[in-house]
Amino acid sequence: MSFPHWLGSSLALSVFSLSLFAQQPTIPQEQKETAIKLMDSALKSKLGFNIVESLTTEVGPRLGGSEAEARARDWGLKLGNELGFDKVSIEEFTMPFWDRGHLDVVLNTPYKQELSATALGGAAPSEREIKAPIVYFRNIHALAEAKDGVLKGKIAFVDGDMMVKSQTGAGYGQANQRRRVGWQHAQRAGAKALMVRSVGSSSHRFPHTGMMSQHDNNWAEIPVVAISNPDADQLRRLHNLGESLTVSLHSDSKWKGEVSSGNVILDLIGSEKPEEIVLIGGHLDSWDLGTGAVDDGAGIGITVAAAALISKLPKRPKRTIRVVMFGAEEVGLLGAFAYAKQHEGNLHNHVIATESDFGAQTIWQLVSDVNDDATVLIDEIGKIISPLGIVRGGSDVAGGGPDIIPMQQKGVPTIRLNQNGRDYFDLHHTPDDTLDKIEPDELAQNIAAYAATIYLIADSDVDLKQ
Amino acid sequence: MSFPHWLGSSLALSVFSLSLFAQQPTIPQEQKETAIKLMDSALKSKLGFNIVESLTTEVGPRLGGSEAEARARDWGLKLGNELGFDKVSIEEFTMPFWDRGHLDVVLNTPYKQELSATALGGAAPSEREIKAPIVYFRNIHALAEAKDGVLKGKIAFVDGDMMVKSQTGAGYGQANQRRRVGWQHAQRAGAKALMVRSVGSSSHRFPHTGMMSQHDNNWAEIPVVAISNPDADQLRRLHNLGESLTVSLHSDSKWKGEVSSGNVILDLIGSEKPEEIVLIGGHLDSWDLGTGAVDDGAGIGITVAAAALISKLPKRPKRTIRVVMFGAEEVGLLGAFAYAKQHEGNLHNHVIATESDFGAQTIWQLVSDVNDDATVLIDEIGKIISPLGIVRGGSDVAGGGPDIIPMQQKGVPTIRLNQNGRDYFDLHHTPDDTLDKIEPDELAQNIAAYAATIYLIADSDVDLKQ
Repeated sequence: MSFPHWLGSSLALSVFSLSLFAQQPTIPQEQKETAIKLMDSALKSKLGFNIVESLTTEVGPRLGGSEAEARARDWGLKLGNELGFDKVSIEEFTMPFWDRGHLDVVLNTPYKQELSATALGGAAPSEREIKAPIVYFRNIHALAEAKDGVLKGKIAFVDGDMMVKSQTGAGYGQANQRRRVGWQHAQRAGAKALMVRSVGSSSHRFPHTGMMSQHDNNWAEIPVVAISNPDADQLRRLHNLGESLTVSLHSDSKWKGEVSSGNVILDLIGSEKPEEIVLIGGHLDSWDLGTGAVDDGAGIGITVAAAALISKLPKRPKRTIRVVMFGAEEVGLLGAFAYAKQHEGNLHNHVIATESDFGAQTIWQLVSDVNDDATVLIDEIGKIISPLGIVRGGSDVAGGGPDIIPMQQKGVPTIRLNQNGRDYFDLHHTPDDTLDKIEPDELAQNIAAYAATIYLIADSDVDLKQ
Repeated sequence: MSFPHWLGSSLALSVFSLSLFAQQPTIPQEQKETAIKLMDSALKSKLGFNIVESLTTEVGPRLGGSEAEARARDWGLKLGNELGFDKVSIEEFTMPFWDRGHLDVVLNTPYKQELSATALGGAAPSEREIKAPIVYFRNIHALAEAKDGVLKGKIAFVDGDMMVKSQTGAGYGQANQRRRVGWQHAQRAGAKALMVRSVGSSSHRFPHTGMMSQHDNNWAEIPVVAISNPDADQLRRLHNLGESLTVSLHSDSKWKGEVSSGNVILDLIGSEKPEEIVLIGGHLDSWDLGTGAVDDGAGIGITVAAAALISKLPKRPKRTIRVVMFGAEEVGLLGAFAYAKQHEGNLHNHVIATESDFGAQTIWQLVSDVNDDATVLIDEIGKIISPLGIVRGGSDVAGGGPDIIPMQQKGVPTIRLNQNGRDYFDLHHTPDDTLDKIEPDELAQNIAAYAATIYLIADSDVDLKQ
């Protein structure tokens, strides 16, 4: 582990601020100095990591709609009160609950080997054990060409390629097609079940779960599971050797009716324009295989800690800073849609919204989607946070994170502090998403960037709307 | 991946040989040149990797005593014939069979979380599900101090520390005590079951299996399981928070009576002293969680490929080269003891024995345990293989690998080509031991070292006995 360059002395940051920005008019010098102090405090603070440790240890895995997610809301409420937020509340909503249940997938022919597998979100149960031959498809395109009914009595296996690691996560959306819509083709072609190669960049033997997409408002009527990359490699090699493969699959994952979920809202009430809201957050739910440390305990830790540091300033910023711990993100952005609906009449007062939901590695880029005048403000913030190793990216990049989409679609301006996602898809949605994967110093860099950025927007008079 | 320095041109190796060793009398120049050509061929050959790929793909996991291990023997026989060995045979033996069966371990209090766990070899079944409170022990020493009967109605959990990575694997033996003998203390103290922190250096969520030790010729009468390092971290954190922990554990692992196993023997018959045997090998069985690529498909691939390259020489070396694919190593060196017993009357003719069973990373050191005159030969071999990045280590280091122990105890001289084991305990005995973890170039370096070393000993007249 090399010593991060942004862990310099506070003096260096202060000197930087005094010399380089002396001519810039938009952000007053006093605010710049405050932002620099916030970054300095954040880099020295363990608060963010402690929050993730507490959430993942005391609550554990917390599937959207589960009793564990309800415990997470209580945890969030308690945390908000302990940290001295001005207003702490839960906004409930209802949602359909999908339960993973138990799954066994065993290769039976040419020999018996337990496969590392997990059900995909929304999958139907097998009722009883299915024993069937595998039909191999090299990728989703090959499966899409399967004619209606040709897979009757068979289990389809859709291979693919291991996701290439990238800083931006490019490639995930494309690879994710087999997880999202593979079932529609397999079901149409008559398959008893579908197995897909996990979407992820890890060569470890972990399956990657995630939600499927609906088709005409319907969920899959067949079991759909993902198997790990090494297991998919093994099936591919056996297939290429000309072996006939059969598999036993037993799954009792299923939909279990309506349940309650909710968003936890922590507010620091603005001192001059309390009605104007600067919204940050992460999602409180996680997939149930790991403890949701990088997805998205980290986002909760980063945004709550950033706001908590701002709350220690002698005076509240002008605008309200709101941290939303979104519920039920993984299972369809349900908390995000509930928030946008419940606050529909007040979205015009949301001056900016952004979410941290891409792991716990360092932030490398600041992008925005605000009006031209406000872009000047964001540019200037970019300069202030640049000593953290962050470059200024596009000023017309819409979307502040998954849970921001419903708000952004209704005109709320967004920024995003893009994290290095290189290792994210090694862990994301797998059983390996646990606390030990987070490097506290990298998390602290995130908090420094959020604290400075959010403070400067909240203490500004600039209107950011397009 | 950096370009390995030993992947130089064959010319460089040849020049080296001609200049540096011109004054050395023990190994004739012609043999040196042959050894160098063997190394050169090995570095260019894919045979070793292809063998591991074939074994792990076509046979898969192969627990000692299982039908899969019997298929592995057939595979070994076929391979030996295809590669043109002079004599190919199976030497059977009987052994008690332990079957892993199915295991579920779920944390119930303070919340429900499935733990990543596996049974340890030799463990008893739970009969029905055990639900019990956990008693936490910081390490094996703390458990050893538990008084008789104090764990009645409880499940003991022995924590420890994650194994530190090292080139030599130092630390494994010590960490392994909790796996080996932990059960004796837990059982004596009345525990219903024992959970131990996995022995391994991986922070991934894989449990590490392995055999327990007997006590007074008895196996454990309680279920004993290992949980992954991240799961152990989680239990430790919860314990440190003062939480009461309860666990449900259901295991049907058990002993299932006597079965057949065997060693596969591939011989290249010596051209002048066929009765003198240079023995190399690896073990054919694997643990059943992964496909046994690094443990010990690699050892099979390395030693078979090395001998196969020697078999392509115009003339057989003077002594017989024997590759033994040992059976049932993981479950107690059973093939090794069977071999030493079945060949008891002929062990004096085994001029040297060595095994490859420490993964697939590069060899860095050559050690030996032979007589003083023979040490000169080994020193000289050390110089010949040094361009592979191998240094000469101790000349009084007894033991040529796990399966060599029974022979070495009866006086068979040994050498060992020590591999870099830094990443070995990330994979060893876990579900993550799969083909993708092997770097073909590193495997080829092993084969080069084995081919040269074994050829030079087999074509020598030097007696190596102490």
